[in-house]
Amino acid sequence: MAYYKDLRSFLDVLEESGKLYRFTDPINKDTELLSLCRIQQRGLPPEQRKVFLFDNVRNGAGERYDIGVAAGVYGFSDDIVMLGLNRGSHREILELFHDALSDPIPPRIVDSGPVQEVVLTGKDITERGLDIIPAPVEEPGFSQIIRAGMPIISKDPETGARNAGGYNAFFRDRDRAVSGAGMTRDIMRHWQKARDRGEDLPVAVVIGATPNIMFAACTHVASDMDEIAFAGALAGEPVELVPCKTIPVEVPAHAEMVIEGYLSTKTLEPRLSFGEYPGYMHAERTKVPVLRVTAITHRKDAMFTPVLVGFPPVESTTLSLVCSQALMYDHLKYKCGLAVYDVGMAPTGGTSMTVIQIEKDARANPWQVLQAAASFWASGKYFIVVDWDINPRDSDVLNWALSYRVSPERDIQVQRGRYPGLDPSNYPVGSARNMQIQSAPGSPRDYFRVLIDATMKGVYPPVALPRQEYMERALEIWRSHSDLPEPALKEPWYGYTLGFWPDEEQRLADMIANGDYRGVGDITKEMQTSADGALRH
Amino acid sequence: MAYYKDLRSFLDVLEESGKLYRFTDPINKDTELLSLCRIQQRGLPPEQRKVFLFDNVRNGAGERYDIGVAAGVYGFSDDIVMLGLNRGSHREILELFHDALSDPIPPRIVDSGPVQEVVLTGKDITERGLDIIPAPVEEPGFSQIIRAGMPIISKDPETGARNAGGYNAFFRDRDRAVSGAGMTRDIMRHWQKARDRGEDLPVAVVIGATPNIMFAACTHVASDMDEIAFAGALAGEPVELVPCKTIPVEVPAHAEMVIEGYLSTKTLEPRLSFGEYPGYMHAERTKVPVLRVTAITHRKDAMFTPVLVGFPPVESTTLSLVCSQALMYDHLKYKCGLAVYDVGMAPTGGTSMTVIQIEKDARANPWQVLQAAASFWASGKYFIVVDWDINPRDSDVLNWALSYRVSPERDIQVQRGRYPGLDPSNYPVGSARNMQIQSAPGSPRDYFRVLIDATMKGVYPPVALPRQEYMERALEIWRSHSDLPEPALKEPWYGYTLGFWPDEEQRLADMIANGDYRGVGDITKEMQTSADGALRH
Repeated sequence: MAYYKDLRSFLDVLEESGKLYRFTDPINKDTELLSLCRIQQRGLPPEQRKVFLFDNVRNGAGERYDIGVAAGVYGFSDDIVMLGLNRGSHREILELFHDALSDPIPPRIVDSGPVQEVVLTGKDITERGLDIIPAPVEEPGFSQIIRAGMPIISKDPETGARNAGGYNAFFRDRDRAVSGAGMTRDIMRHWQKARDRGEDLPVAVVIGATPNIMFAACTHVASDMDEIAFAGALAGEPVELVPCKTIPVEVPAHAEMVIEGYLSTKTLEPRLSFGEYPGYMHAERTKVPVLRVTAITHRKDAMFTPVLVGFPPVESTTLSLVCSQALMYDHLKYKCGLAVYDVGMAPTGGTSMTVIQIEKDARANPWQVLQAAASFWASGKYFIVVDWDINPRDSDVLNWALSYRVSPERDIQVQRGRYPGLDPSNYPVGSARNMQIQSAPGSPRDYFRVLIDATMKGVYPPVALPRQEYMERALEIWRSHSDLPEPALKEPWYGYTLGFWPDEEQRLADMIANGDYRGVGDITKEMQTSADGALRH
Repeated sequence: MAYYKDLRSFLDVLEESGKLYRFTDPINKDTELLSLCRIQQRGLPPEQRKVFLFDNVRNGAGERYDIGVAAGVYGFSDDIVMLGLNRGSHREILELFHDALSDPIPPRIVDSGPVQEVVLTGKDITERGLDIIPAPVEEPGFSQIIRAGMPIISKDPETGARNAGGYNAFFRDRDRAVSGAGMTRDIMRHWQKARDRGEDLPVAVVIGATPNIMFAACTHVASDMDEIAFAGALAGEPVELVPCKTIPVEVPAHAEMVIEGYLSTKTLEPRLSFGEYPGYMHAERTKVPVLRVTAITHRKDAMFTPVLVGFPPVESTTLSLVCSQALMYDHLKYKCGLAVYDVGMAPTGGTSMTVIQIEKDARANPWQVLQAAASFWASGKYFIVVDWDINPRDSDVLNWALSYRVSPERDIQVQRGRYPGLDPSNYPVGSARNMQIQSAPGSPRDYFRVLIDATMKGVYPPVALPRQEYMERALEIWRSHSDLPEPALKEPWYGYTLGFWPDEEQRLADMIANGDYRGVGDITKEMQTSADGALRH
């Protein structure tokens, strides 16, 4: 099946799948729009969540935007993620990423595309410009920004190599934004090279790309890989790119909208507080380059696509987890050759908490896996290895494994050398001012991670649930009752053996299931002993 | 409001509340009945779970029992627990237990009661006896037992003090069962005293008591407290007790059924494998006293009440958690005088994982609370202290706190001295035979627990969600859309400050929420600086 040509064809599939809800009443983009999305995030179970389409978006003065908003298209739920990537399970996505990383498909350059159906330059920019874009406020009452992204596409000024990264432009005037990232990110390496050449850096902010492009931009692939080629491989076909109108950069021809401009290498301006992945406002005044807007191009009836961020689990963490899990899986299974079956990150822990499912054997010693994972993911705080029967995305069964498969002194190790990231627990106690710096003080030497081997050591008796054949029979009876809801069974939902279960145990169990409790009693009667002197302390 | 007179009046309330489902088709008690309950446990979200009533119960030969089965009346879900205890929240239950522990209400002895509407003795016992009771197999295919309970009531042979504990009788013949517990439990202290006197111990197995009696029996109160008086206080009125027909013990007059008998102090017989709280089969051959059945009394149309056990979260762990949380809360808040707000145990971790919610101040230093909790609960493996804004029963927000409020080297301590209990991770690696012993080898000195301070150290920026007034407005809009489902909002569902949020930050946030992004841009423009030499590595 061909991949989605554009966001609209993906929205059609979402609507057919019952995963789209339309708001036609007037909604204030700065106070109401993403708050409605939060009601869904905090109030509905994942399987009930939908993409929200707003086609009557207003500002505080009641003025209507021509451009609508499609919220949640990239990751309001796992179901939406899987539809967006055309895959049916997390494990299929892990394998898809591995295949795409191995065999990228270069983009095809075309002459024209719908993303340029409408072109604004010159006076259209200085008199309207970013005002036409209904970028909503993410945390009204706390956030100090509105922004557009992702990705932002730039090219290496020396080599011409393309980068499409998960960056944003923060709006400051009709023709001015700011944008920037940590100095190790590709866009800033391009920016440094441009500065060395005395030039500004041309960049294109892409809005409303298909999910493959969004996921590719959010994946920290090697610097020498073109994310657009990776996106092509995620889709199974080349991405069509069209040259920008005012800058020497190519952009997805079927996107909804593009902001073209130059990232100044001369002038910096502070970013302001916005919600970050740890779930707190990232209170900061980091100075980043000014972005001078030279053009806005868009489709007729364009849609703006915000990404819900902040308190996890939320769209931005879902995006991040899907990509990070896939990179970790690719590393452990295909680069390190370890028998890893699945990698899950706790939805509310972001990339802080990684759970790795293995089948213990010579190719997957738990501590080997833990060290390999920690070496790959510098900012991870918890790494947990679990057996094949523990779903790494289910915190209930994870707690079960932590409770009954871990002896702390044997199975938990606190290890030096974590990269601190934005984690607020790294800041010095009581130091309000330090909330405003971008990175925690000190070096990775000062921060620690926790490695946990939550696999079984040795044999266990069976899991205490009815054996498979009895549960399957019960499921038949259940389904014969039309007034009972169809169950969504979580694993484990039947019992299974784990190494210790002699034939003699099974024989007695079979007698009981056949109703012969008195037959079992005849056997145990033969084992009676005197209570004299027994059962004392 | 008066408490439930009997189980039937509670079932009426459950039915009115939409929490009861009736199976009228024939169901095999040994293979199908509790398997159907497991489908619900593993397949439906807690709020959809119901008590299951079976009134056409069969054995494998297709023979119908006169007695029906009511499954899940004590704890198939939190909603059912709260209805059973007439309270609306977990915190109300914690306070109810504290009040009841402080002011027990002694039972009232009455002459007769419906539990003795039908009386079986003599030949009725030897020819039918336990055969009339449709005790279901809990894990068909693995379990080797059928059983009845709880509670079992006995009296101290010296003092006459009553004990009602969460014990079971395992059926072995029409007139024979076995029953017993660890030697530190009250029933076995009574048994030892009886043995010392050369007597057997009279015991009554109670089936189908009201929830207050069940919860009281499952609570490890002090040995000198009569659990029936504690149950009275949970209900707010005395429990009516009626003398048994063949033994000098009194039992709840309105229960569904009672098995009367003598626990032999001369003869022991092995118990066999059954599902235990860690979620594995407890493969064992521990020898416990034989129970000689002298009478069975029951109501007309009596109902048998099994307790779903084994893989957590399940009814038995729910019962255990409700009681254990309450005891821990009572200890920390009222005995130790610590500012503890809530105590939750992880549903799948059983009592292995305790989360304590505090408001940090002079009366609740996190490490003081952790040590007090560990000293109270000898078998706990993880103790975690969280701030006032973390729901201790929500593993998602718990993972959030663990991810971003914990620095491992500062906030995690592995401590010696845990009582190992039945936790299979304590058994020596690879030692199949050791699966059959009742307790792990060694002493508490050989086992460890983990203490975690997951509170904020110092101030934090606000939680990255819209501020309360914006979320409340969004909720209004949401509810004006009749085709959107009513949300069940989980906390946090709006942002709030956590110590760091200067007025200047709020001013910029308010400008953005009012749509004035260009006004903010005018301010940050004044803060522009040259990029010369800045942003280098």
